Amino acid sequence: MGLIDFPVAEYEARLARAHDTMAASELDALFFTSEAEMRYFSGFRTLFWHSPTRPWFLIIPRGGKPIAIFPEIGAALMRGSWLDDIRTWPSPHATDDGVSLLLEALGGATRIGMLMGRESSLRMPLLDFERLRDGLTASAFVDASALVQSLRMVKSPAEIEKIAAICDITSNSFDNAARLFHQGQTLAEAFRAFKIDLLTQGADDVPYLVGGAEQGGYGDVISPPNQEPLRPGDVLMLDTGATLDGYFCDFDRNFAFGHACDAARAAYETLYRATEAALRAARPGLTCSDLYRVMADVIAQGGSDVGRFGHGLGLQLTEPPSLISFDETALKPGMVITLEPSMTVEAGKIMVHEENLVIREDGAELLSRRAPPELPIL
Amino acid sequence: MGLIDFPVAEYEARLARAHDTMAASELDALFFTSEAEMRYFSGFRTLFWHSPTRPWFLIIPRGGKPIAIFPEIGAALMRGSWLDDIRTWPSPHATDDGVSLLLEALGGATRIGMLMGRESSLRMPLLDFERLRDGLTASAFVDASALVQSLRMVKSPAEIEKIAAICDITSNSFDNAARLFHQGQTLAEAFRAFKIDLLTQGADDVPYLVGGAEQGGYGDVISPPNQEPLRPGDVLMLDTGATLDGYFCDFDRNFAFGHACDAARAAYETLYRATEAALRAARPGLTCSDLYRVMADVIAQGGSDVGRFGHGLGLQLTEPPSLISFDETALKPGMVITLEPSMTVEAGKIMVHEENLVIREDGAELLSRRAPPELPIL
Repeated sequence: MGLIDFPVAEYEARLARAHDTMAASELDALFFTSEAEMRYFSGFRTLFWHSPTRPWFLIIPRGGKPIAIFPEIGAALMRGSWLDDIRTWPSPHATDDGVSLLLEALGGATRIGMLMGRESSLRMPLLDFERLRDGLTASAFVDASALVQSLRMVKSPAEIEKIAAICDITSNSFDNAARLFHQGQTLAEAFRAFKIDLLTQGADDVPYLVGGAEQGGYGDVISPPNQEPLRPGDVLMLDTGATLDGYFCDFDRNFAFGHACDAARAAYETLYRATEAALRAARPGLTCSDLYRVMADVIAQGGSDVGRFGHGLGLQLTEPPSLISFDETALKPGMVITLEPSMTVEAGKIMVHEENLVIREDGAELLSRRAPPELPIL
Repeated sequence: MGLIDFPVAEYEARLARAHDTMAASELDALFFTSEAEMRYFSGFRTLFWHSPTRPWFLIIPRGGKPIAIFPEIGAALMRGSWLDDIRTWPSPHATDDGVSLLLEALGGATRIGMLMGRESSLRMPLLDFERLRDGLTASAFVDASALVQSLRMVKSPAEIEKIAAICDITSNSFDNAARLFHQGQTLAEAFRAFKIDLLTQGADDVPYLVGGAEQGGYGDVISPPNQEPLRPGDVLMLDTGATLDGYFCDFDRNFAFGHACDAARAAYETLYRATEAALRAARPGLTCSDLYRVMADVIAQGGSDVGRFGHGLGLQLTEPPSLISFDETALKPGMVITLEPSMTVEAGKIMVHEENLVIREDGAELLSRRAPPELPIL
């Protein structure tokens, strides 16, 4: 038995928007191999994507409901979705892992859109994709990344509700910091305590938890925890992607133990002011590069192009758009984004600060509970 | 600061084996875009792969140490690895997300091996890969899936130690079943309690936990939990991929509440006998298809080709080889595999049973604590 996370009307609305843009782009079909798009259009949600063994395919025909072309092991769960047309094969297969089913399903399509651009992957063997392309002599595969990303960027009220709920759970756990984290505890123990608290507060999963803790900052922002004990003067940062019904939050918090050096406190306050400025500035019509610039101007470090200061989130920990100097996407109501400015504290030490928000008609609405204006000391 | 999970000698040994097979296959370079291979050869471990924004590349030159071609955000962590040659660019980039660095690094290679076959993905934008291929006019990209998979299949003693440790932790948590699971609890609550216990017992993460609970069996084996309360006669199955230092266990356990129907008890015992037969049969030289057949003969259901009855595991939840009718891989000492027979209990109801083991010179050594011979009743 399967279950889908939204009423069928939600998926119908997503499909209708896809059909509109497909017609405008003269696409006969959209072809997906990736988890996020498959879940977005079908409701099919499983952690089984951790197994790389089998490819999974979804096709959206122009004007039609999505067609799932699925390994048999996923068929029972997919039958709980809102789709009618589910075609299966016994996978892994000795010679034909879904390719002949794809050839049949895509045979009539002249222009087939798929994800080929920025932020995309091909989640099927390249040799099988080449076999498919060679077999469809009358078809052209064209890049539909921008089209699909623009659909997914704007969240529905039901999606925003789920992201808001997981942001709230994670805010609750961060509020427990003084109980969860203490000097002498190893960083790995701090991570473990935080994950357990997130689950206890109601998170389904904590797929992403990274961070660091060093004197007056940290060396990077993507590390797993080490076994070093937390010491006075350490600044602990936990960047958290917890999920509820498969939707992510993505924000971090900083804490110092005992005391914090002036440089760390100053960096924290600069980052706070940068996010404060962005929260005031964010509104429909402003471009992502503009919003990036608002934060970069406060930080006033490293000139231009010092990185990415935020991004979309939802089904994935990070999604388009990017708050970066060259992303000219205009903000729209319903977009859920992070503000994530970072700066150098001293050579080899950085700090980051992150909040999650949704763009409303009249500006930004925070989804994460706002970080305090000064670096908290535990 | 970075950290790697093994002494440098471990990575040197992996590289030496890669160099040997590259020479035998006349490959000038291996080119990777995927997490598992990057971690295997470099030691670079992060959960940041959850963000699809940036591509990451690793090149193994014939006879040389791996070259990391990495977004700047990963450079600090990679510098803690054993690699010397780390080339970075500011990613995301407006026009060139690593492609020109790849062109430069791969320019002299005539035959470049990469993962194109079974179980592989291309984790970079297809358009960028085409740009790369078009730019390397004197190079051919050839499929090196079998070569790379054959290297990774055989685990070192240090790898086996990590897998054994996470199997032990998960066995401890399954031993707590009577305390963790009870009638009236929702399936989602049971999952949450189990994850918290796994973390408490010492797991770093629980990236994979799926299962089901229905009367006398379950409909599929890849579902997330629902909100239904556990009832008398339900058979609960939890399939668990917990991790330690990035290494997976992957096994399941079944429990009935109050009582179990005859069909479920009989299916459990058949599956137990199938794994028992496979544990006795598994030894170096036996092929995966032979080991599959040993289990299929006990189950004697559905004729041949009823699915996959096990697989490799390690850095990934599932890895080659497959215990399936057409996989002629011969077992070797050091291979870590699952036995995972499944069968139909009645229409729409199945059961599965799974153990983890390592192949030794003289046969199979269990890594999971053996399931009881009869379906446990809670």
